[in-house]
Amino acid sequence: MAIGEFVKSADFKSEKHVPVIELPEKIEAGKEFLVNVSVGKEIAHPNTTEHYIGWIALYFKPESGNVHNIGRAEFTAHGESTKGANQGPAYTEPSALFKVKLNEPGKFIAVSYCNIHGLWESEVEVKF
Amino acid sequence: MAIGEFVKSADFKSEKHVPVIELPEKIEAGKEFLVNVSVGKEIAHPNTTEHYIGWIALYFKPESGNVHNIGRAEFTAHGESTKGANQGPAYTEPSALFKVKLNEPGKFIAVSYCNIHGLWESEVEVKF
Amino acid sequence: MAIGEFVKSADFKSEKHVPVIELPEKIEAGKEFLVNVSVGKEIAHPNTTEHYIGWIALYFKPESGNVHNIGRAEFTAHGESTKGANQGPAYTEPSALFKVKLNEPGKFIAVSYCNIHGLWESEVEVKF
Amino acid sequence: MAIGEFVKSADFKSEKHVPVIELPEKIEAGKEFLVNVSVGKEIAHPNTTEHYIGWIALYFKPESGNVHNIGRAEFTAHGESTKGANQGPAYTEPSALFKVKLNEPGKFIAVSYCNIHGLWESEVEVKF
Ligand SMILES: [Fe+3]
Ligand SMILES: [Fe+3]
Ligand SMILES: [Fe+3]
Ligand SMILES: [Fe+3]
Repeated sequence: MAIGEFVKSADFKSEKHVPVIELPEKIEAGKEFLVNVSVGKEIAHPNTTEHYIGWIALYFKPESGNVHNIGRAEFTAHGESTKGANQGPAYTEPSALFKVKLNEPGKFIAVSYCNIHGLWESEVEVKF
Repeated sequence: MAIGEFVKSADFKSEKHVPVIELPEKIEAGKEFLVNVSVGKEIAHPNTTEHYIGWIALYFKPESGNVHNIGRAEFTAHGESTKGANQGPAYTEPSALFKVKLNEPGKFIAVSYCNIHGLWESEVEVKF
Repeated sequence: MAIGEFVKSADFKSEKHVPVIELPEKIEAGKEFLVNVSVGKEIAHPNTTEHYIGWIALYFKPESGNVHNIGRAEFTAHGESTKGANQGPAYTEPSALFKVKLNEPGKFIAVSYCNIHGLWESEVEVKF
Repeated sequence: MAIGEFVKSADFKSEKHVPVIELPEKIEAGKEFLVNVSVGKEIAHPNTTEHYIGWIALYFKPESGNVHNIGRAEFTAHGESTKGANQGPAYTEPSALFKVKLNEPGKFIAVSYCNIHGLWESEVEVKF
């Protein structure tokens, strides 16, 4: 274990870095559904040129078999500008929505990255 | 112009590769809003191990100033499996939702990539 | 043409943003070779928390057929730190090396992104 | 620990998925150097439309402070084609070169992703 040692977790209600995974109440095998993953649901994370959430990755570990990378969302606008930091026209907030279809139950794991506070994760079970 | 020569566009109602950008009716300067970008809104695009939409990128060109990369969503599960192509547990569909805050009007440009049909784009104006 | 309108080009000897593609003298069909793509070869581009090259993407357009995305390198460390901008332990410079195998001649197109100066490109022909 | 549970490691000489990190003999604080990260150095990994290494990410954990994402290389061409799987013009092999500058000692951690065999990692210490 190397990277796993440095991926932090916590309760998202008190720790703003933790990615929050939101699923529909009911998921059916072979049917599309939406997975919302966001950082800062309860306590907003800063979004400045100097401090921001850079990306969120979503993984799925089926009950049997290897982990699959579902997707990854990059957030690349943080107020940067030729006029100087935080003077720019655009900001991207750390929120992603993945449209997914699963053929097996398992669990989702989300990993998020803050450019100064490192890697954070959370997981949620998927049952049909 | 090099890459621009190879990015195709068309009406999404007849061409399944074109990314569709959906915005709220009303956008206000400095207020968060959601930008949905998807491929296959009218005619579904295949999602198989051999043929899929790999990613969607979103750009914002303010009325004055340089283009900014807002974000990028990668779709990385396409039924691949140790059991063979299209036997896997997970599929990611080409749909992305970006949470954005703008301080200037301009236009969004979305670019999508099909692993066998190349680059596609569309654009939409943003007015406050 | 939408995104193509905003991708700039120039001579890399006088314009520091232009990606430089370097190939071996001789390329053979079906044999691996290395493609170096870098920004700032002649005139270094800044690499600070506020201003940096975020990524380089490499495309290949075969003489016949659609454009293919060869790869993409993200540069994600720019001195950011909990101690403040430009106080961090790590910087990633905008240089990428792709190991590639081609079965057809065509051309490579590189696109680079500066977080405040936008999109830049260059191209080079591949002959066997 | 969630994602760390599913990131596998092994000796790269017997296990083809493990990313191999190669550093120069001597690294100096504040001076640029190259970090090569590749999969399949000893035993080549398949590169087909159905089975490939999709990306390699590089992290740096300074002796004190949080982990930083140095970069990420995506390998996006695997012989896919409108003519069918493995008939395409281009293949990208899983090899990446990062140009880095560090101000503190620590360790690099590389993570690689096989689209059917999941996540793999390795690490190497950096001393000045
Ligand atoms: Fe943070
Ligand atoms: Fe297609
Ligand atoms: Fe610049
Ligand atoms: Fe494998």
